[in-house]
Amino acid sequence: MISPMEQPPRKRLFTPGPLTTSRSVKEAMLVDAGSRDDDFIATVREVRRKLLEAGGVSQQGGYEATLIQGSGTFGIESVLSSAVPPSGKLLILINGAYGERMLTIATRHKIPNDALRWPENEITNPAAVEQRLAQDRSITHVAVVHSETTTGILNPIEEIGPLVRAAGRCHIVDAMSSFGAVPLSLETACIDFLVSSANKCIEGVPGFSFVLARAEALQACKGNARTLSLDLFEQWHGLETNGQFRFTPPTHAILAFAQALRELELEGGVGARAHRYRENHATLMAGMKALGFKPYLSPEHQGWIISAFHYPDDPAFKFEEFYRQLAARGMIIYPGKLGKVPCFRIGNIGQLHPSDMTDLLEAIKDVMRLMKF
Amino acid sequence: MISPMEQPPRKRLFTPGPLTTSRSVKEAMLVDAGSRDDDFIATVREVRRKLLEAGGVSQQGGYEATLIQGSGTFGIESVLSSAVPPSGKLLILINGAYGERMLTIATRHKIPNDALRWPENEITNPAAVEQRLAQDRSITHVAVVHSETTTGILNPIEEIGPLVRAAGRCHIVDAMSSFGAVPLSLETACIDFLVSSANKCIEGVPGFSFVLARAEALQACKGNARTLSLDLFEQWHGLETNGQFRFTPPTHAILAFAQALRELELEGGVGARAHRYRENHATLMAGMKALGFKPYLSPEHQGWIISAFHYPDDPAFKFEEFYRQLAARGMIIYPGKLGKVPCFRIGNIGQLHPSDMTDLLEAIKDVMRLMKF
Repeated sequence: MISPMEQPPRKRLFTPGPLTTSRSVKEAMLVDAGSRDDDFIATVREVRRKLLEAGGVSQQGGYEATLIQGSGTFGIESVLSSAVPPSGKLLILINGAYGERMLTIATRHKIPNDALRWPENEITNPAAVEQRLAQDRSITHVAVVHSETTTGILNPIEEIGPLVRAAGRCHIVDAMSSFGAVPLSLETACIDFLVSSANKCIEGVPGFSFVLARAEALQACKGNARTLSLDLFEQWHGLETNGQFRFTPPTHAILAFAQALRELELEGGVGARAHRYRENHATLMAGMKALGFKPYLSPEHQGWIISAFHYPDDPAFKFEEFYRQLAARGMIIYPGKLGKVPCFRIGNIGQLHPSDMTDLLEAIKDVMRLMKF
Repeated sequence: MISPMEQPPRKRLFTPGPLTTSRSVKEAMLVDAGSRDDDFIATVREVRRKLLEAGGVSQQGGYEATLIQGSGTFGIESVLSSAVPPSGKLLILINGAYGERMLTIATRHKIPNDALRWPENEITNPAAVEQRLAQDRSITHVAVVHSETTTGILNPIEEIGPLVRAAGRCHIVDAMSSFGAVPLSLETACIDFLVSSANKCIEGVPGFSFVLARAEALQACKGNARTLSLDLFEQWHGLETNGQFRFTPPTHAILAFAQALRELELEGGVGARAHRYRENHATLMAGMKALGFKPYLSPEHQGWIISAFHYPDDPAFKFEEFYRQLAARGMIIYPGKLGKVPCFRIGNIGQLHPSDMTDLLEAIKDVMRLMKF
């Protein structure tokens, strides 16, 4: 056996994911599981059951959990290209890059679509959705992003869902960066399809996304899929038939995820995790304001998942240098930036505690001194 | 930190993948990497370069390596749905389940297609391919499986490729279970697109597939893709532009793969690995024959990746029981079986040596005594 070359020092990821995970979650990957073996099948069953619990429903609650290989976008594309029939029409609510991405997917699959748009610092407006649904009877599905990672804004899906349901349409939620971090009942929010990913707030490692679907809506997907790999109905049907994936699953990532779900339980569930993340966020916000940084969003729209800050209005600030200096201190913030306004983002999620946020703030202070801004 | 619940005893996987991997490959996953961080970008660059080397070409050799999230099938679907233009036609050579799967993908995407079929115990015939290409001028692409995991048969892609190239068509090879185990030059075999997966003979963990493509053929994919997630051209273009993935990559699986590629080099490259697998196969074959098992394939068609054996003609043999008894001894064989003929399969690949094959043979002997067949 050969040791990995130069083990890099531990880095903390203040990003929207992949996140910092616990050592024990990573250690769960030190096993090679047979993808069609009984032990692994039992693990997959456990994972699917616990995901429904985290969504506030029991396995008897009329919802089904399905895992999809690939990133979160693969899960979104699986739902959009499986749920909307050829005769359907998708309305997409957009106030950030992930809403735009759903539109790109719909267009790529030639799914009839329409979009409602808001500025990136405004929430999607339930009344406008209700009005559009009343105007356009051909709309069959409505898709919205819960926590827009673009800005960290939290959209009011619990208000939108009941309106969509009352109008007899299907409600699709991209809960990529909110699931596990924002207490939510799929039933109360009238969600037909919810998509999230292994490497977000359940605190697993990347490798797959998951879909929680109302059983009836899932059944209606049969025969709609435009692809083989991302056929949501067949993926679920395969898992139900013999507990196995149709195609090779990321066995190690799933073992890590099973451990992550156990650790979520031990922490006290979604409520307790939301509490920790809110504390992380409050610590960061207070500290950044004290350092003179201005948050992009107004406080009433700001979620606690990820926070966007304006670039300081100082020529001495260069984001690339700022990023590299923090990275050299083992602190990885998110290099992506917003479309129009120069902002950078810091994630509050993953295996991070308020003390980690304080460490980050100290490092930022240090870099500010060095860069003289 | 919480320890994973009851660490299961080590199991050896005698399957077509996910495989047994080295401890050091798995330990490379004990790090959380930022997916957009410089260190990770450098690792991805290293992986892409070494994959081209394993395919017998240099980065200057006119080929490009692209990683695709998801299983091997995702990589195949990416190539078929990106490479064949709307005006194209795909000829698929079929002598097993993985050839059939390509046909399913083509049909799902409404890609015009045709198939040439052979029995599962016969190789695809180059002369028949040449003839079909001469007859049907509308065929633009030919797809073939190198090592059909269904049976372990090795198709003559090095004969087919030059014929396809000479006829001016594009040559697509599913090298899922052969890449890294069968010495191959992409240039000599006239391959335009080759697809394999992380959890096969490079001995990484599952989570992504990879495509080695002739640069010119890859460029021709632009604008063809029927999906967003599996858009081969855009995936490559994203990696080229800033070294980053368009969508979250399986960071841990990629760190493991980088380590696996280092260990492939240390073993002596593809030639040395092929030698070890051939020894595994020879040990297994001799031992199984001595125990009275009959191989499904005739020796001239049998590859050294995976071997199929007929069920013993004895009512005391029940496959389920046979599988479970071996699993209880820490030996996982492959539970899947062939379509028509009752067979089971044993893989010779992964971090296994002839002594592991001998251990498996001892366990089989033991189970035969117990089950009285």
